[in-house]
Amino acid sequence: MTGQEMHQLATRLYPICRSITGAGVRETLAVLQEYLAIEIKAVPSGTQVFDWVVPDEWAVSEAWLADRQGRRVIDFADHNLHLLQYSEPFCGVVSRAELESHLHSLPNQPTLIPYKTSYYRKDWGFCLSEEQKATLLDPEYEVHIATNLAPGVLNYGELFIPGRTNEEILISTHICHPSLANDNLSGILVALNTALHFSKTSSHYSIRLVFVPGTIGAITWLATNQHSSIKHGLVITGVGAEREFHYKLTRSESAEIDLVAELTLRESGHPFHILPFSPYGYDERQYNSPGIALPVGCLMRTPHGTYPEYHTSADNLAFLQPTALAESSDLLIQILSNLSANRIYRNLSPFCEPQLGKRGLYASDPAENMAFLWVLNLSDGTHSLLDIATRSVIPFAQIMTVADRLVSAGLLECVG
Amino acid sequence: MTGQEMHQLATRLYPICRSITGAGVRETLAVLQEYLAIEIKAVPSGTQVFDWVVPDEWAVSEAWLADRQGRRVIDFADHNLHLLQYSEPFCGVVSRAELESHLHSLPNQPTLIPYKTSYYRKDWGFCLSEEQKATLLDPEYEVHIATNLAPGVLNYGELFIPGRTNEEILISTHICHPSLANDNLSGILVALNTALHFSKTSSHYSIRLVFVPGTIGAITWLATNQHSSIKHGLVITGVGAEREFHYKLTRSESAEIDLVAELTLRESGHPFHILPFSPYGYDERQYNSPGIALPVGCLMRTPHGTYPEYHTSADNLAFLQPTALAESSDLLIQILSNLSANRIYRNLSPFCEPQLGKRGLYASDPAENMAFLWVLNLSDGTHSLLDIATRSVIPFAQIMTVADRLVSAGLLECVG
Amino acid sequence: MTGQEMHQLATRLYPICRSITGAGVRETLAVLQEYLAIEIKAVPSGTQVFDWVVPDEWAVSEAWLADRQGRRVIDFADHNLHLLQYSEPFCGVVSRAELESHLHSLPNQPTLIPYKTSYYRKDWGFCLSEEQKATLLDPEYEVHIATNLAPGVLNYGELFIPGRTNEEILISTHICHPSLANDNLSGILVALNTALHFSKTSSHYSIRLVFVPGTIGAITWLATNQHSSIKHGLVITGVGAEREFHYKLTRSESAEIDLVAELTLRESGHPFHILPFSPYGYDERQYNSPGIALPVGCLMRTPHGTYPEYHTSADNLAFLQPTALAESSDLLIQILSNLSANRIYRNLSPFCEPQLGKRGLYASDPAENMAFLWVLNLSDGTHSLLDIATRSVIPFAQIMTVADRLVSAGLLECVG
Repeated sequence: MTGQEMHQLATRLYPICRSITGAGVRETLAVLQEYLAIEIKAVPSGTQVFDWVVPDEWAVSEAWLADRQGRRVIDFADHNLHLLQYSEPFCGVVSRAELESHLHSLPNQPTLIPYKTSYYRKDWGFCLSEEQKATLLDPEYEVHIATNLAPGVLNYGELFIPGRTNEEILISTHICHPSLANDNLSGILVALNTALHFSKTSSHYSIRLVFVPGTIGAITWLATNQHSSIKHGLVITGVGAEREFHYKLTRSESAEIDLVAELTLRESGHPFHILPFSPYGYDERQYNSPGIALPVGCLMRTPHGTYPEYHTSADNLAFLQPTALAESSDLLIQILSNLSANRIYRNLSPFCEPQLGKRGLYASDPAENMAFLWVLNLSDGTHSLLDIATRSVIPFAQIMTVADRLVSAGLLECVG
Repeated sequence: MTGQEMHQLATRLYPICRSITGAGVRETLAVLQEYLAIEIKAVPSGTQVFDWVVPDEWAVSEAWLADRQGRRVIDFADHNLHLLQYSEPFCGVVSRAELESHLHSLPNQPTLIPYKTSYYRKDWGFCLSEEQKATLLDPEYEVHIATNLAPGVLNYGELFIPGRTNEEILISTHICHPSLANDNLSGILVALNTALHFSKTSSHYSIRLVFVPGTIGAITWLATNQHSSIKHGLVITGVGAEREFHYKLTRSESAEIDLVAELTLRESGHPFHILPFSPYGYDERQYNSPGIALPVGCLMRTPHGTYPEYHTSADNLAFLQPTALAESSDLLIQILSNLSANRIYRNLSPFCEPQLGKRGLYASDPAENMAFLWVLNLSDGTHSLLDIATRSVIPFAQIMTVADRLVSAGLLECVG
Repeated sequence: MTGQEMHQLATRLYPICRSITGAGVRETLAVLQEYLAIEIKAVPSGTQVFDWVVPDEWAVSEAWLADRQGRRVIDFADHNLHLLQYSEPFCGVVSRAELESHLHSLPNQPTLIPYKTSYYRKDWGFCLSEEQKATLLDPEYEVHIATNLAPGVLNYGELFIPGRTNEEILISTHICHPSLANDNLSGILVALNTALHFSKTSSHYSIRLVFVPGTIGAITWLATNQHSSIKHGLVITGVGAEREFHYKLTRSESAEIDLVAELTLRESGHPFHILPFSPYGYDERQYNSPGIALPVGCLMRTPHGTYPEYHTSADNLAFLQPTALAESSDLLIQILSNLSANRIYRNLSPFCEPQLGKRGLYASDPAENMAFLWVLNLSDGTHSLLDIATRSVIPFAQIMTVADRLVSAGLLECVG
């Protein structure tokens, strides 16, 4: 998909009211199934998942606030951010004073509707702009929240793309946000496009994609699935805005995915920032917990909470840029390609230099000769191609090419 | 004790003529026994202690220098620094020229009396100010040094404060200097006050304090006592003047005491300096010798030889500041407290994050939440609380508090 | 030999036409035999040496280019750089156009003759200055290249200087260049002079010197000799010009030779540069190949290709400086001496400090005392004298002296 095509698909998905459970997630995954055979899994409410319990499923019929004249001044039908996520049902007339504690707005961003949730504390509420709130001058309002919280299921999507080995790369992206474009339709689209690429390409690693509700979805997936084949992982989120790339390191801060992501970013020419690990942020929190201990980094352009559009109605389709989606997708594909290519070789003619000239490998380009010599010198079964590229300061792609040529010439074999 | 009370006690101890042996050390330790049950140990002269031999005991009856008119121009009774320590007995009239080699003064600090010793080379002498020396114009002087060097004992004080475990922290301070206030009544007082604190407090570690004559006393103690339970140690000296703190690292420069001392200094807000290890200075030389190999650092405000008052009569009670004594004492108590608190925990709910909200641990303060998440994430049985505080850049006290709350909630257990 | 004597010997060796095989190498080694009993080894053409084959031996009778009037405009007899090394025989008249591809000159250095070779691609050619080339205006020229390429031998020189142990230091220098003074008569002379020094001195290590044709010679030596006793090595090249020293690290970049070379350079007072390892340059390429894996650094003043005289007729006897040769020789001797002296000791009185005074070791010089204390403190069987010099920032020579005195006093023993 081009950036434009991804943006068009985002336009289709944007209005759907996703949450950690409910029809919105299923509807979204069904759209993705038009592209790839993503499985839609369902885990019943009440299932114990590690320290957590899968919550009741949430459904919204309608939700509005009406003034004394019966005018619907706030309506979920206008914007699904208007309803506090996981609002319990409530119908009745409440005083303006009582209503106050159920209204969520942003005094410093008076034109924007905030995104708010109350998954684990029973509550109801409306989110609205500070400007809208200022017009609510009646002494009382009619509240009509027709939602349903009842045993159902939590859904997530999963796709497995077989590689040449059973070792897996995990790509995880959260799918629980309603009408927010960058956070996280962008992650969903970039993951989907990357999957499309690898479904047509042979790669060392198998790739497992999970489209999960944030926190509870990742926990549910980890609690109900084997993950011992996962060697590397990435959480993809906030990759649709024209901002500089940010890569957040895994818990060890020195996993292979950390090194490959940094090298790929450096070679991409895009400005980027490497962030230290912290046990906060997105679902990398769960993957990097001490009992799970998967080396999962996080690729973003917009780290959580650091940009004014974050968790507001300004994170809309205009904030999402086709070029940004395309760049992010290209970068993710390149990271995964580099990870797959980052193998360890053994020089089969390790005693002194082999005679390159007699094999037609002696290049007129001195830089190419250096690449041959570095790969031969360091391929002792302990250095990966990434190690060689890093130490020699030669582009990874050239190191890869040279390694392939040396394999063809019988001078190198892959050992890991 | 307050800083003022420590200073008052210093005033009482200041006039006593301490040396590496003799009545002064016993008298000093007897005063300390008014506060805590310090044991006074005695090791006979002639005892072989590793490569050394406990020397004869030194006693001074009187010592003076008189001019031709019989006036006592220099008298030990005026200031005990006037007598070269370990002067052998000598009575007789000597020419001014012969006297010259027995006079010790400081040309660059003409008003100060230096502190000099001759423990292992038989000699006698007087220490005096350059100004006093300039008045010695007679052709000859009567020398009267009534000292005694004879088999006796070397004394040191020792105090053991039991903790919750048998693992010990060693606090060592030298007690052999006569009327010098900062060097080292300050060390004696700060060690005493710290001992008073821990005699009323429960702590992970037992604390062993030794009040020893410098060099030969530390060697004697090491040669005649078991020290296999000592896990960490500190030499305390020169902590009574209003100067910036200095912490000298142990031989490995990366012992736990090094990390804890540096963190505690950093969090104290006091300016401080970390000094590399060197095999010179105070008794850390002996504790860090290759055969002893105890991780013993050294806490000072005034490193040896780096300040004009060093080993002179200007290191007096006016140089000793109550506020400096109080600060040093507080800091040492904090270092030992942090060392005791620096335990390793294991997260008992290590698979993804535990649900903090249902346990009432979800804090409204984001910084507190981060502390919970960091402690849970890194408590895998390998990281100490110090490691966690350092990596998260969260104050150690907050990390400790959060760990206690997680233990209470059943989410954490101490494993080391 | 003095620098002047080395330069005189260079003057004698300069006109000889050396190549990777042939009489020039034998003639050169025969001159060196006047100084030391260097063995001249011969390996037959056709011998398989790892991935390579020893080439045919090359001999030159005469080689010239004549114009239509029969004037010899370029003649090997004038300068042996004029003939492309390993030119095959060729006699005939060729057009100026056809001749062009057989002429090698340097447009940017129009007065200099370049040094060129074609060992493994059959070719013939002349090297000449751009100015000479500009005079070749005739439509055709007579080429007369009377060379011979036929089975013979490859020669190299080898010298073993026994030390107190069988562990060896390898000194390797290339001997295949014709009239180039700095590259590499300088290396040959400095190696020879260093060998003269150690032939009269006792040293911990045995020293093995090899005078080998570049690349094929080093490969041949490695393929046909045991080298398991070699613990450290150095390639010596380009050490005769008045340029700053360059030391190129071994493949691990942290071998003992790397540390010793850097310390020796630092203490020498000469400006110097440490270069990273790269699998290019001189014969360190072969010694550091993964199957050989010898820790061999490279000592130079002029790294290859970085100076205008490189591989041209300007690398002549005027470019070679007696003072530079003497300095390089002194430095190499010092590196090898330090390497031999860099032993590990054990403190025999490790429990606290030994009493230096009673052994007459208590120095009035505080710096000397510190040297005693550092050596005693760190001599626990794991730290070498180099480690101690580095950590204490005390000159290596002083650390060595102090170690010797402590051994004499029975306080230290050598353990490795």
